[in-house]
Amino acid sequence: MPEFTHLDKEGRVRMVDVSDKEPTLRVAIAGGMISMNSATFEKIHNQTVKKGNVLEAARIAGVMAAKKTSELIPMCHPLNITHIQVDFSPDKETNSVRIEATSRIIGQTGVEMEALTAVSVAALTIYDMCKSYDREMTISDIRLIEKSGGKSGRFVRREE
Amino acid sequence: MPEFTHLDKEGRVRMVDVSDKEPTLRVAIAGGMISMNSATFEKIHNQTVKKGNVLEAARIAGVMAAKKTSELIPMCHPLNITHIQVDFSPDKETNSVRIEATSRIIGQTGVEMEALTAVSVAALTIYDMCKSYDREMTISDIRLIEKSGGKSGRFVRREE
Amino acid sequence: MPEFTHLDKEGRVRMVDVSDKEPTLRVAIAGGMISMNSATFEKIHNQTVKKGNVLEAARIAGVMAAKKTSELIPMCHPLNITHIQVDFSPDKETNSVRIEATSRIIGQTGVEMEALTAVSVAALTIYDMCKSYDREMTISDIRLIEKSGGKSGRFVRREE
Amino acid sequence: MPEFTHLDKEGRVRMVDVSDKEPTLRVAIAGGMISMNSATFEKIHNQTVKKGNVLEAARIAGVMAAKKTSELIPMCHPLNITHIQVDFSPDKETNSVRIEATSRIIGQTGVEMEALTAVSVAALTIYDMCKSYDREMTISDIRLIEKSGGKSGRFVRREE
Amino acid sequence: MPEFTHLDKEGRVRMVDVSDKEPTLRVAIAGGMISMNSATFEKIHNQTVKKGNVLEAARIAGVMAAKKTSELIPMCHPLNITHIQVDFSPDKETNSVRIEATSRIIGQTGVEMEALTAVSVAALTIYDMCKSYDREMTISDIRLIEKSGGKSGRFVRREE
Amino acid sequence: MPEFTHLDKEGRVRMVDVSDKEPTLRVAIAGGMISMNSATFEKIHNQTVKKGNVLEAARIAGVMAAKKTSELIPMCHPLNITHIQVDFSPDKETNSVRIEATSRIIGQTGVEMEALTAVSVAALTIYDMCKSYDREMTISDIRLIEKSGGKSGRFVRREE
Repeated sequence: MPEFTHLDKEGRVRMVDVSDKEPTLRVAIAGGMISMNSATFEKIHNQTVKKGNVLEAARIAGVMAAKKTSELIPMCHPLNITHIQVDFSPDKETNSVRIEATSRIIGQTGVEMEALTAVSVAALTIYDMCKSYDREMTISDIRLIEKSGGKSGRFVRREE
Repeated sequence: MPEFTHLDKEGRVRMVDVSDKEPTLRVAIAGGMISMNSATFEKIHNQTVKKGNVLEAARIAGVMAAKKTSELIPMCHPLNITHIQVDFSPDKETNSVRIEATSRIIGQTGVEMEALTAVSVAALTIYDMCKSYDREMTISDIRLIEKSGGKSGRFVRREE
Repeated sequence: MPEFTHLDKEGRVRMVDVSDKEPTLRVAIAGGMISMNSATFEKIHNQTVKKGNVLEAARIAGVMAAKKTSELIPMCHPLNITHIQVDFSPDKETNSVRIEATSRIIGQTGVEMEALTAVSVAALTIYDMCKSYDREMTISDIRLIEKSGGKSGRFVRREE
Repeated sequence: MPEFTHLDKEGRVRMVDVSDKEPTLRVAIAGGMISMNSATFEKIHNQTVKKGNVLEAARIAGVMAAKKTSELIPMCHPLNITHIQVDFSPDKETNSVRIEATSRIIGQTGVEMEALTAVSVAALTIYDMCKSYDREMTISDIRLIEKSGGKSGRFVRREE
Repeated sequence: MPEFTHLDKEGRVRMVDVSDKEPTLRVAIAGGMISMNSATFEKIHNQTVKKGNVLEAARIAGVMAAKKTSELIPMCHPLNITHIQVDFSPDKETNSVRIEATSRIIGQTGVEMEALTAVSVAALTIYDMCKSYDREMTISDIRLIEKSGGKSGRFVRREE
Repeated sequence: MPEFTHLDKEGRVRMVDVSDKEPTLRVAIAGGMISMNSATFEKIHNQTVKKGNVLEAARIAGVMAAKKTSELIPMCHPLNITHIQVDFSPDKETNSVRIEATSRIIGQTGVEMEALTAVSVAALTIYDMCKSYDREMTISDIRLIEKSGGKSGRFVRREE
């Protein structure tokens, strides 16, 4: 059973040393969703079709946040990601917007935190853009969907 | 029914002008949770009791992220919050950690995005600190719990 | 004749001390433009009408950059601007996009650098979004158009 | 005729994926200028000769801003530039200061945005340092002068 | 005997809540020094007299770092300082440069961390600018010299 | 005798061009200390043993600051460090805490500024966490202890 790699022998927080790892292509896909009332959903959905502004702002915020991941997460290595993409799928039945982010790099460590950060900040931006309209929007299901590259190989989350 | 205040007449993204608002005491409380498998929960839980390192790192990351909110959320006003607090409640039955953040300011606009950002980044930090152990941790229930101050008055979320 | 207020008697760079200034409403309007070939202009112009993406990205970048002004300009005071707005006027005759930014605050010092920074970064973002198409785009006419508030009173640039 | 590479099929803003590009030496040179009244020019010019403070502050600001390019321009890749240089040529006849910035990297994508950002922020800093003296200074001619490296080969702007 | 105000009852790191404090004029003065071999000192000293570049770079770095204090020190409140000044006194007898920084604000909490951060980063910048010449430079005596404003009144350090 | 590599022939501040350097493993170790009165030392020391909070906050702050080095030190190259570690040794006899930081990268330039920045900000954080208790804490002995990699070979400081 693997141990927490961020804690050294005496329990002190530490950054994993990746100096000796070989750079390989790393890809991570993360997902999440934000749920809202139907009137808010309609507003966002219609915008998506007509002007796309809420989602474009959220997309840009997600991409920019991914680039800031190592400033936000204390033990994350700074990484120059070579690609980050944020996509949205509005789901009318549940009045929610699904968010998916993919990050890529040829590097010494994984990029799942970058994808998860992009999803989280995209969701927060949707909240911020619509909060005057619906204060009870809820962000959920933020999770790693898939990851490849590095010693640990490919991971695909079993979705229920 | 209130309109999206971030969109001007022609649908362009815009920042709300708060220049003429009176500064009042603003408080916001946001919550969220991260769920994991039982072995991971035990690890975190024992740390909390013994050394608190994962949660202390997450707490510090949440506080520092709250101070960066306006760098992350495109239309958020820069604010000098006068207090931000992040608390954790491990729940053994569900193998999850509940996260709650409170932000305060005497200012011209609300601080809910600061509290929501603190919760989100605290959760992402827990994920990062434990990801070598459990890749399937899920962050959910990120939401505004309570908010007061300003023209719109006090809001308390109806929790199911 | 006013002296350079950023240099002390011995020529050392210094920040102006505004501790004793009264907070007043400060407004600044800055302008600029980016010129391009006609094919690029058509692309941007059509986007504006149809999807607005290049300009929306530039608008968001300009707003976010205004919030970073004091990180970029060494002697600028950190300020919590209460409003920043970025607008675009495509001009078909000259194949250029005019950019205008307005910044507002009730504070102890002016916000012209915030407006000028918003214009500059909006222009750079337009360049970045279209550079694969036209490397010779040129940014020009970045200037303060109007400024009010503070001891020095209202300034309106004489436009030729 | 090349298409806008920042827009995917449905017009959504996106970052170009450079994961598969080979790192090569990339060099970019950008230029710009700031014009002012003669009294202000004399002030700056004499400083340059005697103490160089306005221009040294602008130089440092330009270098530091180049390092922040990917934080400012939404779709720019984070890059660890290996060199950035900012130079000034005061031109007495036109009461203007010409600014030139060179950026270098061995990397997967070009560094023209870094050079353009350095020029822009250096110009804004000159404005800020002298604005109490001349509010009508104008920044213009911000453009890419030369670029090499990568698949698209060497570009040299035809200067009129 | 006062308790550590950053630790709550259960030892968790926390930010002090200053929401209810009255804004008053806060001033802090911090000092420090960097010692070097005589050849390096001569180099810096002559630069100071002739061009001042090392010290000007350090001064600008110190001012800019003061503005970033709350990004660096986890529990520091974000503050819009209204003045920060960094001064140097080269001391030929000890081959050292003394650094002093003053910060000011009308605010709800003290600005000593801003002054101490300015001194620290100014010293690090001197080290960086000269490290190819003298790797053994040492930074020392970083301390609060004076502080006023707020409930705790005026503090002046007893210098030996 | 080596020259200041950050200054060009005319005394202008410049960044060293490392584009043509080969990436090699770079390691740097820096040290420093913070001294205090005995009551404060006891407080910190007991925390270290029991909960470690002051030192854990300082450790996290040091790691995060190392990642920000090139934002703080004007002529530092941006680097993606692959490891940074911050350790503390409380010394009861002198009522001081010794701080040591190690940074590592495979890169084109050294990482001593990253280690020195980590030490400095860890020390400032200890000051901030305890300043309500002891305003006269002093930070000293910030220095490079060891450095290897690159053309200049291994350096080990002669400690007195």
